[in-house]
Amino acid sequence: MADLPYKTALVVGAGPGIGASVARALTAAGLKVVVAARNPDRLRDVANASDAIGLEVDATDPASVAHLFEQTERAIGVPEVVLYNASGRVRGPLTELDPELVRRSIEVSSFGAFLVTQQAARRLVPHGRGAILLTGATASVKGFANSASFAIGKFGLRGLAQSAARELAPKGIHVAHFVIDGSVRSQARADPQDAPDSTLDPQSIAQTYLAILAQHRSAWSWEVELRPWVERY
Amino acid sequence: MADLPYKTALVVGAGPGIGASVARALTAAGLKVVVAARNPDRLRDVANASDAIGLEVDATDPASVAHLFEQTERAIGVPEVVLYNASGRVRGPLTELDPELVRRSIEVSSFGAFLVTQQAARRLVPHGRGAILLTGATASVKGFANSASFAIGKFGLRGLAQSAARELAPKGIHVAHFVIDGSVRSQARADPQDAPDSTLDPQSIAQTYLAILAQHRSAWSWEVELRPWVERY
Amino acid sequence: MADLPYKTALVVGAGPGIGASVARALTAAGLKVVVAARNPDRLRDVANASDAIGLEVDATDPASVAHLFEQTERAIGVPEVVLYNASGRVRGPLTELDPELVRRSIEVSSFGAFLVTQQAARRLVPHGRGAILLTGATASVKGFANSASFAIGKFGLRGLAQSAARELAPKGIHVAHFVIDGSVRSQARADPQDAPDSTLDPQSIAQTYLAILAQHRSAWSWEVELRPWVERY
Amino acid sequence: MADLPYKTALVVGAGPGIGASVARALTAAGLKVVVAARNPDRLRDVANASDAIGLEVDATDPASVAHLFEQTERAIGVPEVVLYNASGRVRGPLTELDPELVRRSIEVSSFGAFLVTQQAARRLVPHGRGAILLTGATASVKGFANSASFAIGKFGLRGLAQSAARELAPKGIHVAHFVIDGSVRSQARADPQDAPDSTLDPQSIAQTYLAILAQHRSAWSWEVELRPWVERY
Repeated sequence: MADLPYKTALVVGAGPGIGASVARALTAAGLKVVVAARNPDRLRDVANASDAIGLEVDATDPASVAHLFEQTERAIGVPEVVLYNASGRVRGPLTELDPELVRRSIEVSSFGAFLVTQQAARRLVPHGRGAILLTGATASVKGFANSASFAIGKFGLRGLAQSAARELAPKGIHVAHFVIDGSVRSQARADPQDAPDSTLDPQSIAQTYLAILAQHRSAWSWEVELRPWVERY
Repeated sequence: MADLPYKTALVVGAGPGIGASVARALTAAGLKVVVAARNPDRLRDVANASDAIGLEVDATDPASVAHLFEQTERAIGVPEVVLYNASGRVRGPLTELDPELVRRSIEVSSFGAFLVTQQAARRLVPHGRGAILLTGATASVKGFANSASFAIGKFGLRGLAQSAARELAPKGIHVAHFVIDGSVRSQARADPQDAPDSTLDPQSIAQTYLAILAQHRSAWSWEVELRPWVERY
Repeated sequence: MADLPYKTALVVGAGPGIGASVARALTAAGLKVVVAARNPDRLRDVANASDAIGLEVDATDPASVAHLFEQTERAIGVPEVVLYNASGRVRGPLTELDPELVRRSIEVSSFGAFLVTQQAARRLVPHGRGAILLTGATASVKGFANSASFAIGKFGLRGLAQSAARELAPKGIHVAHFVIDGSVRSQARADPQDAPDSTLDPQSIAQTYLAILAQHRSAWSWEVELRPWVERY
Repeated sequence: MADLPYKTALVVGAGPGIGASVARALTAAGLKVVVAARNPDRLRDVANASDAIGLEVDATDPASVAHLFEQTERAIGVPEVVLYNASGRVRGPLTELDPELVRRSIEVSSFGAFLVTQQAARRLVPHGRGAILLTGATASVKGFANSASFAIGKFGLRGLAQSAARELAPKGIHVAHFVIDGSVRSQARADPQDAPDSTLDPQSIAQTYLAILAQHRSAWSWEVELRPWVERY
């Protein structure tokens, strides 16, 4: 595993898949890690599994996100790596979607990412270094039928990532957006169709996240697509 | 001017630039037109200038948008052409933006477009024809520094446009997204740097909107970029 | 049909589909038109059907292209509209393609387009006006399996189009690239699956080509996608 | 440095920058490496510096490329990693470019890449594993004025990469395209403007190439952009 130039990390939206795997990989690389999520039960599992501190947060609430960063700083210091991994989605035909659920899902996917990026930037810009990682999806670059809310939220996240990269890279902050293009393998259950490697393995995803964190500033990636070898696209 | 296969239109977000010009072009092409906006003074001017009916709306409020479509139907029948032209933006460094203004600007640019698209789809899908036009910007495809909120909102709008196009085109509804790549000429004042044609003329923009509306369903465009001849990009 | 600001046109790669339809639409709009192709029989048919002058050309041979422009100038004056519509392709697995056929197909799709664009630019730049249209394909933006030669050629064509647009637009020349995303309807035979409008109608395609030619320089499109309403993408 | 699942590599287009650095990184990772180039003097330097075998090749000549792969196989076995790193370019206004130099530059950038990819695929597909890396440039995704030949060649290379990825990934071959977005630091001379890290360091580039080679097939990247932290884009 690559040697990282960072000592502390905050993972927001720490579910059992990518969030948990990246958190585990970061602790394995020697970083002190805080994981944050809305659901306390899920959060406890992820924190335990990744040997990290768990903190509750509502990522769409400015005060809650500000509080999370304050708690994080007290617990591990300024988080030099910040990963936003939460997303919202409501499926269904455009004509049938509940507007308030759509509003909420857009907020989780993109506005929450803004709040976390802003709090991170306030702490990292004065230091002139750090990394902000944003987990996108196929929906970041392709809007599918019956998935308008996810397309709005993930395209929006990508817009944030590109704007933040142009703004923060010259200040020494590495912003990277990951297009997770395929289904992520569930670790909880055996999946007969899953063999061999037809879904994205969260550990393999985490390996690339860490490789991007290990990049020298003379050659940074802004966007990286990840998909299984047999994925159609 | 192209002969259009539509008789009625609703323009949401009718400011003095693109909204007003498209409304005028549509009435000139013989359509009955409703223009809608939040600001009653601005609305009155646009309605008068384009010989259209003016209706107030808060595009981010589901009930207000639903009411707008009901009023429009009573006034001119089902709008066969629906244009969403509103957008929000807050400029400034990521670290300094007011979160509530960012939330609001994302809602105006993308959530309001969702609400309008949904109401339009509910009325047009049963007829199997109609058009939904969405006005984007350079920020739909390029996220600039110090412009995170506009990038989130306009990328999100483009995600909606692509998702809606994939979902509604096979139902006979033409969804098109316009990338307005440059400054739009103000009609209110003479602009010495403007000559010759270095900014986007709203009437020229409107001409292409109408050309897209005139397309036969065997050859539809989903996305069209428009920029002045001397624009750098 | 839109009123065009041009009087003369040259269509290179004039097959029975798009080339012939655009040529017909241009003569119908009052332009004097030359159509050029390699195959004399096909050329005669297209010239007759579109009331245009037919000239033979090998689009990949610099001397032949230069000669074509000289002949065209003598016949109708400087062509103010130039359309490159030729393309080459060899299908099959990468491992089995004949290298010389691949080389040839790349040359037809992209190098020939360069030669035609160059000759057009030499004549149009001094006038400060004119249009160069380039017919792309789905393969301009998406590289498919078993279609490497077409992907190389059409991506290459798009690179030419973008470079030429950035270079020539500020000199008054409108360069536009069309992504023809779907099968083009054959006019020669009835196609039972074709109803209703599931393939691209060449006349509908030509209508959009002319709408782009009619754009004012304050609001030019560089790229336009065209696909049937029921196309999957 | 990442642990690689490969034992042998062939680097075609081995100049003093990226080619040499990747070759050195691969030998450092324990692979047997052949470097190939047209210029025998440059080739000797790169081979010496990277502890690799040097072989001459004309990448645009099918017979020469076939011969290179035969020689490589005899020297180190089937190359499991194949990198195409050559490119051609002629700068200048469209109107002034020498057509034969443009033809040649397109061939070096894209047709040569096809020939190398084909020879690699013939050897790797039967084994069901291996990697083909293609070095692109800013010009792979953005066509600049006065740079038509480079845009045609590099867009074409990207089309090849995408087509080959869709075709070969399901056969176990990892195809990746790198968008080198910025100037690459010359190692030969001290560059006063270069500090600090304003140009791409070839060693940093090579580090990401190796990270991509280390990816598990459940999460492959097809395209990776690399640019310096201060690059404008």
